[in-house]
Amino acid sequence: MDIKAGLLKKDKRAAARLISMMENGDAEAVQIIKDCYSMTGHARIIGITGPPGAGKSTVTDKLAKELRKAGKLVGIIAVDPTSPFTGGAILGDRVRMTDLSTDPGVFIRSMGTRGALGGLSKAAHGAVKVLDIFGMDYIFIETVGVGQSEIDIVKLADTVVMIMVPGLGDDIQAIKAGIMEIGDIFAVNKSDREGAERTAKEIEAMLDFNRSEEYRPPVLNIIGRDNKGIAELQELIENHWEYLNKSGSFGQNKIKRLQTEIMDIFRDTVMRTVYDLGEDTNIINELAQAVMKRKLDPYSAADKLMNEFTKNRKHNY
Amino acid sequence: MDIKAGLLKKDKRAAARLISMMENGDAEAVQIIKDCYSMTGHARIIGITGPPGAGKSTVTDKLAKELRKAGKLVGIIAVDPTSPFTGGAILGDRVRMTDLSTDPGVFIRSMGTRGALGGLSKAAHGAVKVLDIFGMDYIFIETVGVGQSEIDIVKLADTVVMIMVPGLGDDIQAIKAGIMEIGDIFAVNKSDREGAERTAKEIEAMLDFNRSEEYRPPVLNIIGRDNKGIAELQELIENHWEYLNKSGSFGQNKIKRLQTEIMDIFRDTVMRTVYDLGEDTNIINELAQAVMKRKLDPYSAADKLMNEFTKNRKHNY
Repeated sequence: MDIKAGLLKKDKRAAARLISMMENGDAEAVQIIKDCYSMTGHARIIGITGPPGAGKSTVTDKLAKELRKAGKLVGIIAVDPTSPFTGGAILGDRVRMTDLSTDPGVFIRSMGTRGALGGLSKAAHGAVKVLDIFGMDYIFIETVGVGQSEIDIVKLADTVVMIMVPGLGDDIQAIKAGIMEIGDIFAVNKSDREGAERTAKEIEAMLDFNRSEEYRPPVLNIIGRDNKGIAELQELIENHWEYLNKSGSFGQNKIKRLQTEIMDIFRDTVMRTVYDLGEDTNIINELAQAVMKRKLDPYSAADKLMNEFTKNRKHNY
Repeated sequence: MDIKAGLLKKDKRAAARLISMMENGDAEAVQIIKDCYSMTGHARIIGITGPPGAGKSTVTDKLAKELRKAGKLVGIIAVDPTSPFTGGAILGDRVRMTDLSTDPGVFIRSMGTRGALGGLSKAAHGAVKVLDIFGMDYIFIETVGVGQSEIDIVKLADTVVMIMVPGLGDDIQAIKAGIMEIGDIFAVNKSDREGAERTAKEIEAMLDFNRSEEYRPPVLNIIGRDNKGIAELQELIENHWEYLNKSGSFGQNKIKRLQTEIMDIFRDTVMRTVYDLGEDTNIINELAQAVMKRKLDPYSAADKLMNEFTKNRKHNY
């Protein structure tokens, strides 16, 4: 299959294949993205985040259906919590098996946080670019809003929708505060549950406290399962998009995000090189053995690794 | 204050100061750790993890009190969810204000995940080493068990205690599966709540499915708040320690952890260097501007950054 030709002909299998290749850090895939990079910039990227159990998948699905009614093409990238050992996505396609799967105007992809090499940001960035080149009008990135790598992924988005839920227990204050600053729109899902109004009020109170800008994130009560408040939520997303473009924030945000992206790709490349070096030469194991015997401390070991890396680097650049 | 002399005289203020210096990546602090590295290896490192609201702090405090009764010196490092913007710990010392704070045999420290530069692993590793050199018998590392960086931190521990709690909602299966493989002991906290027995059974069932080794993690119902099951939990921690030493797993685990640590220090150093480069030369902003205008793609931008990094590196090594 000619992946690049397939992508340009809007073949979903080609897109799926290219995303997999990006996940595996395939050089050919990167070359295709490089070649087609000038075609990016069409899609609006919407981050959907919030604590476990908030109903992010349901809300994303309902928003996607809303957009499909208006004839828009929709991509969904669902980032799952992952096993640190197997590297696979845990929820996988299980959660994402909805009636959207058979809609030709929708592309759904699950990804997992694979290992400690920081590859997920890169993979998510890659998938967004593939779907952007493919011609999607909207791309949703859905992820749990806890943990640095998840927050990094959400920063990809033009608009971040924070899905909250009533009654989440003790640590909710901490979660809220951590994600408060990255939310452009707050949706309190499962609002038929007790405490929904109070949760909305708490969010408003935190916004009073945290924000001093011209844009104040709206707070909306919704019931994703029953499609209640979904059209309103979509309208708030459109409003935020208008605000971004009118205020000039769009360009500023975009530059920040590109900086982060370049740094992420850089870090991935470095760590992949060092990892390969470890596989090829056993150097990381040898250094660890020396530290274990306390012949070396870990900082000096990292210095030695840096020397090896720099030497190795010269052959690649 | 002479930090090194203070540390060796078991001055807690010196330890606190040194940990702060380590958090800030201070070169002098690293030198002190290098000098004293041969004094490490005494402390047992216990990871306490689990989902938000599971009662990790309470269980840690009760375990610490149990150990204090036996005359042991205890360090606690509480890793908090962090604001990605301010870089500060959100819960901070608020949660950790217990009657332990005034006990001279206990040292408590909160840390936050600071920014995207991957500094937290390094800081946590640093704090563990400081407390190990200080002479602590046990060091607890407490963190939310969601997200890659949190999992990385937990991998520091000799023994990982997973705190679960009944009735956590839809995504709990995913959380469980993600942390199942790193748990050496499972404690179902708040076991006076409905569903505690079922949660314990679910964990046992997952252990049946996931594990094939000689060591099977025990599952215990506890009520941290009421000190119920804490002595038993401490005994399970001792049993696991005996298993580690008898089976030879200790050495194998330790080598793996040292490899991770060396890689973490390496990554932090690389990213700090690049970050400084960006501050000094504006190169990252310039690259982002070029990508924004689509004169460059992000992968080629990262390549250019690598060239600059390698040049810059030569002056430091």
